[in-house]
Amino acid sequence: MTDDRLSTYRSSIDNIDAALVHMLAERFKITQAVGEYKAAAGLPAADEDREQRQVERLRRLATEAGLDPAFTEKFLRFIVAEVIRHHQRIAGDT
Amino acid sequence: MTDDRLSTYRSSIDNIDAALVHMLAERFKITQAVGEYKAAAGLPAADEDREQRQVERLRRLATEAGLDPAFTEKFLRFIVAEVIRHHQRIAGDT
Repeated sequence: MTDDRLSTYRSSIDNIDAALVHMLAERFKITQAVGEYKAAAGLPAADEDREQRQVERLRRLATEAGLDPAFTEKFLRFIVAEVIRHHQRIAGDT
Repeated sequence: MTDDRLSTYRSSIDNIDAALVHMLAERFKITQAVGEYKAAAGLPAADEDREQRQVERLRRLATEAGLDPAFTEKFLRFIVAEVIRHHQRIAGDT
């Protein structure tokens, strides 16, 4: 099943996935700092206005890059849901 | 609610998100080619062995990068589910 052409594609996918994992690691470092800041300032974990602005911006960037904007919105909401769980945990810890 | 410190964090998050969107756009270009190749070769859309190897590798990379491996696995499965939907659509079109 695996021939040279499929292997070449998969090797590119693996490189991109490693980049995605490292970008996400960096993103969660920042949202961790945001969570600590929000907890200290007594700010709520979620911010719907901010999230809506992020969705609109990323849908626009996705369209320009040839990525499905509906998928991109699902992707952002998937990440943000995880971030909010972290923020709530941080707020509960303080 | 938005002060300088939060704005600085958010500007970094926005930069990372733009990078993620462009990485994903590139990843879907490659999986589109994989889907067309698999459809032409009569190969199934999903490949559980490959997916399991990807999960194990990304969990390892995530741990090294300080990212939650359980979240990383959820993330990969989220992306792969979308890819499989695309592959099935391509296979159905041919």
